[in-house]
Amino acid sequence: MIATNSHPEVHIEYPDWVNSLVKWDIPYNTQEDRMRLAIAVSRMNVEKDTGGPFGAAIFESETGRVVAVGMNSVVRLSNCTLHGEMVAFMMANQRVGSFSLNSPGLPKHELYTSCEPCAMCLGATLWSGVHRVVYGAAREDASLLKFEEGPVFPESYKYLEDRGITIVRNVLREEARAVLELYRSRSGKIYNG
Amino acid sequence: MIATNSHPEVHIEYPDWVNSLVKWDIPYNTQEDRMRLAIAVSRMNVEKDTGGPFGAAIFESETGRVVAVGMNSVVRLSNCTLHGEMVAFMMANQRVGSFSLNSPGLPKHELYTSCEPCAMCLGATLWSGVHRVVYGAAREDASLLKFEEGPVFPESYKYLEDRGITIVRNVLREEARAVLELYRSRSGKIYNG
Repeated sequence: MIATNSHPEVHIEYPDWVNSLVKWDIPYNTQEDRMRLAIAVSRMNVEKDTGGPFGAAIFESETGRVVAVGMNSVVRLSNCTLHGEMVAFMMANQRVGSFSLNSPGLPKHELYTSCEPCAMCLGATLWSGVHRVVYGAAREDASLLKFEEGPVFPESYKYLEDRGITIVRNVLREEARAVLELYRSRSGKIYNG
Repeated sequence: MIATNSHPEVHIEYPDWVNSLVKWDIPYNTQEDRMRLAIAVSRMNVEKDTGGPFGAAIFESETGRVVAVGMNSVVRLSNCTLHGEMVAFMMANQRVGSFSLNSPGLPKHELYTSCEPCAMCLGATLWSGVHRVVYGAAREDASLLKFEEGPVFPESYKYLEDRGITIVRNVLREEARAVLELYRSRSGKIYNG
């Protein structure tokens, strides 16, 4: 029986290692620099045992300033929605003070993610207002660990592209895959619903 | 410039009207009772000006006990991910203390949502561990308000059904549509990214 006068709340915070990894005040200039941050987040999430092997980062496209990072937090925070990309979107929304990174007056934003987004994260990409998505490892790489990506089809990507979102695939794929392999070798939890 | 020693946090709470609407200690026995709660949440969200015209509720299938509700909170909480279904999943995860509503020892859970889920929410449905989804208004009804649903295709539903999730469509569709119409008549904000 649930008390009538109580209800749950959700609190999402970064693990305490974030500020040791992210250079908030130094621009990340190249595509590889930006992807390396997303992959570094995924790797530290595994090494520090704070979640699954997936990391993301959102940048201002022009300045290279990092606006937010995200790391898979499903198990740490008991929340099925907290894939790395989702945490990055939520934190970026807080940072800019708007539900859309495409709000008037804001610079263009882009998402880097260490692995191809699942169906949920691809949908959220559309609502987030980023104009560009860059991913590292591919769906097949995650599937080797039995991580599912859900109902994503070629038409799903076309749907985003038709709305002006650029998709860039397999940047530093081997470095991103290496983190998936690290997780597998540590017998990390596979937490599909 | 962002201070190196600060980072954002996300807090998600219900608006204060929730406990006046939800009967936490009384079972919702029929499919219509359960859908009426999801629709009532969507309607109150519009009437109290706390968000878009979308509501959801998660029940234990056998007992009819409501585990969590969710209401669109995108604008209220400046968070592009907070569709009604997402809030319901997150709150249900907190309530049961697990990232999956399908964890060992838990009863079966089902999602009721006042409108057909978007691509993000359909993906999250898969990760949530619910075994059944019941929706009210259809994608076309939301499109009339220029709310987008994203890349959802017939194969998307088939993907979920192949994994044992039952989909039930258009339950109390007219009652659910009436809330969309109410929102339109009040010139409510359309907050696609």
